[in-house]
Amino acid sequence: MINLENSIERIRDLLADEDSLEHLRQELDGYHSADLADIFLELKSDERLACFQLIEEEKAVDLLEYLSPQIQVEILGEIDETQASRLISKMPHDEAADVLGDMEDDESETYLDKLPHKFSSELRELLKYDEDTAGGLMTPLVLTVNSDMTVENVMKTIRIKAEKDNMDLYYVYVVDKQNHLLGVVSLRTLLTSPITQNVSDIMSRDIVKLHVDDYRDYIADTFMKYQFNALPVVDLYDRLKGIVTWDDAQDVIEEETTEEIYASSGIATEVVEDNILSGSILNAVRARTPWLFITLLGEFLAVYVANHFDHAIQALPIIAVFIPLLVGLGGNIGTQSITLMVRGLSTGEVTLSTAVHHVFRETSIGLLIGCIFGFLVIITTWGWQRNFELGFIVGLAMAINMMLATIIGTVTPFALKKIKIDPAVASGPVITTAIDVIGLAVYFVLVSAYLFECRIA
Amino acid sequence: MINLENSIERIRDLLADEDSLEHLRQELDGYHSADLADIFLELKSDERLACFQLIEEEKAVDLLEYLSPQIQVEILGEIDETQASRLISKMPHDEAADVLGDMEDDESETYLDKLPHKFSSELRELLKYDEDTAGGLMTPLVLTVNSDMTVENVMKTIRIKAEKDNMDLYYVYVVDKQNHLLGVVSLRTLLTSPITQNVSDIMSRDIVKLHVDDYRDYIADTFMKYQFNALPVVDLYDRLKGIVTWDDAQDVIEEETTEEIYASSGIATEVVEDNILSGSILNAVRARTPWLFITLLGEFLAVYVANHFDHAIQALPIIAVFIPLLVGLGGNIGTQSITLMVRGLSTGEVTLSTAVHHVFRETSIGLLIGCIFGFLVIITTWGWQRNFELGFIVGLAMAINMMLATIIGTVTPFALKKIKIDPAVASGPVITTAIDVIGLAVYFVLVSAYLFECRIA
Repeated sequence: MINLENSIERIRDLLADEDSLEHLRQELDGYHSADLADIFLELKSDERLACFQLIEEEKAVDLLEYLSPQIQVEILGEIDETQASRLISKMPHDEAADVLGDMEDDESETYLDKLPHKFSSELRELLKYDEDTAGGLMTPLVLTVNSDMTVENVMKTIRIKAEKDNMDLYYVYVVDKQNHLLGVVSLRTLLTSPITQNVSDIMSRDIVKLHVDDYRDYIADTFMKYQFNALPVVDLYDRLKGIVTWDDAQDVIEEETTEEIYASSGIATEVVEDNILSGSILNAVRARTPWLFITLLGEFLAVYVANHFDHAIQALPIIAVFIPLLVGLGGNIGTQSITLMVRGLSTGEVTLSTAVHHVFRETSIGLLIGCIFGFLVIITTWGWQRNFELGFIVGLAMAINMMLATIIGTVTPFALKKIKIDPAVASGPVITTAIDVIGLAVYFVLVSAYLFECRIA
Repeated sequence: MINLENSIERIRDLLADEDSLEHLRQELDGYHSADLADIFLELKSDERLACFQLIEEEKAVDLLEYLSPQIQVEILGEIDETQASRLISKMPHDEAADVLGDMEDDESETYLDKLPHKFSSELRELLKYDEDTAGGLMTPLVLTVNSDMTVENVMKTIRIKAEKDNMDLYYVYVVDKQNHLLGVVSLRTLLTSPITQNVSDIMSRDIVKLHVDDYRDYIADTFMKYQFNALPVVDLYDRLKGIVTWDDAQDVIEEETTEEIYASSGIATEVVEDNILSGSILNAVRARTPWLFITLLGEFLAVYVANHFDHAIQALPIIAVFIPLLVGLGGNIGTQSITLMVRGLSTGEVTLSTAVHHVFRETSIGLLIGCIFGFLVIITTWGWQRNFELGFIVGLAMAINMMLATIIGTVTPFALKKIKIDPAVASGPVITTAIDVIGLAVYFVLVSAYLFECRIA
């Protein structure tokens, strides 16, 4: 891969000098489009535009595909409209539909009107589907053949069709006259079969396929599981409508992972349409407050519990200063357990049938770490306050708290999964709050018992 | 996809009845290997073994590839050794090497000795590479041709070689006599070019390639970025040694994401060799304690800060009970900011050049949410304790704390990235502790100022 900082510096130097535009053109031409996309991300708007207009058309189309929707729309909006429509018309259907889908309606209409009729009607068809479904992700250009064709005829068809339409080529799909999907042949099988053979003899009839309305999480799971290069997309009547290729699926998988990670820190992406990093601030606030609000309620419960022991705090104010230590470490080890289980459930490394095993395992780990940290706390507190009993109470509360935190952190994801709620939401807010409340209760009960002892003695 | 629970129930029923083994065989035969792998994950050891022995050899090989290393080794260890070697010998090289790599050395030696000589020496070659490098991930079976061959000759070569060696076929690699990589031709280009053309005329010379020693994170990034189906792997002298295919890269990407997620909750996977979910408990403890220990130190700092204000706590014990509320919510909103920045940096949606923009954006969001939550706290506390001044102090501390938390949570990942430390470690432990310490300091300063006012008045 390239050294991004050096490349950008060189490009900026060339941009600054009007005489070196030809050099700049050559420099830009030397990069892979994926690298150029990385460079464009770091450039300022006007620099991007200046560079983009130096790149030859074929590469510009390729580059557009690698750019993020915001930058695509920004560049296309600033260049000449005719040039923009020509670039869009050369993009693969699914990419072009994505670009148009990210524009305002009237803007995309302008482009659609300028595009060749066949292409624009195919795009309008794609734009009908929800962009989060297989229909929205697919490209309608598929290589289809009839079941009575020979391998030799199929090869000829490929030569003509694939060449003309710039289509992705992973599999050849066998369909009947009404376009019902009958079978699939990989290029590999095609290339290694006798040329006189019928495709119906070599095609696979067990077809893993997507439905136009299948949602992104299902698409991501299906690609992760079966690891095909492309999956056919059919409508309600099993008619072939298009294919979703692995690079599109790759993007979906990445976005699904992002949502899972967001959910784990209580960011609810599903409540807003916008991109949470670049959309309106009010929408970002809306996505972030629901779980914070639940935390607020939970923490008021913790406040309520602690308030029950205000006599203990008055009698021995030092006990209050240990509260952050207790809830902080309990929360952290609990979050570790949650993270391990949620990710494990998501990748399939952990399953409901192994839940009991994992609960016991995590409990042992929690107990072990709890004892280590409890001991450290006893020593430190004793060394600091010269008060062994205080240290012992804090240390004991710490050990119990850490063990309880691992148990809660392990059981909850399984329980949520069992009742079919996404376990990712267990992470973060709700559970750390529960651990806070329970941890405080344990601590104060221990402290009260100790104070009671003192009063008796 | 299949209904897992129903399938398992049906299989268990058939297993229970000795007369229905033939039915079971048919039932198992009806599943895609990826589905069977899911089913196997849920079955008990003895059930797995019983089912495995009913599956015909070709499908068994395919199934093994989808199973996790633990289950692969378990099954191969329990079936007949000769049968096991035969199954291994039919697996793709990279998968076979993975299976053997997961075994104890003497066990894998037994199998290597039983395998056909050519295959076992190729496997020994692969086993030399670190399994986390391109050398360890690649398959050595690559379709290579010479640059002076015509398209027609290449097609003939494919027919012979690909058929015989069961090789993955995405691209054809053009090499010289010493196997130096000269160019690459996609099957698509091959199928759409005139058959008399020379491959040197249609091959691409700008080759994105991996080096045998490239590490998994680099491999994952390269595949994510360029989105190729397969990448060639070369040695120090640019000689072609094998290819890494996208399905292997997919697994690597998933594992890299898992490590990133683990790191965010302070689980240090790099300190232990074991799988953290299934390895020894002591190693799991070792992976989880380092960051907890840092948290312990940090929280003792929080305790130390709070202890400076013990006169305030003694004067007004109720202020102590609000500590969990303050640190809990500050920690949560700070974690949200960290999560957004760390994930954004990892996917490329956020870059160092946009850091200032994101810091301002997050600060505004923190301020806005802080005001909302501060207001809620003022009202609730006033309603509960009928003490407006107390509520005001807690609410104000909350608002300041939440804003500071977003600032710290946003700035830190960028700062770490700038000094080339993985920003994922910023998440969780260190920063939440910092937020705790600063939040407490703000709170107690406000409380002390209030108490001072009271005393004067």
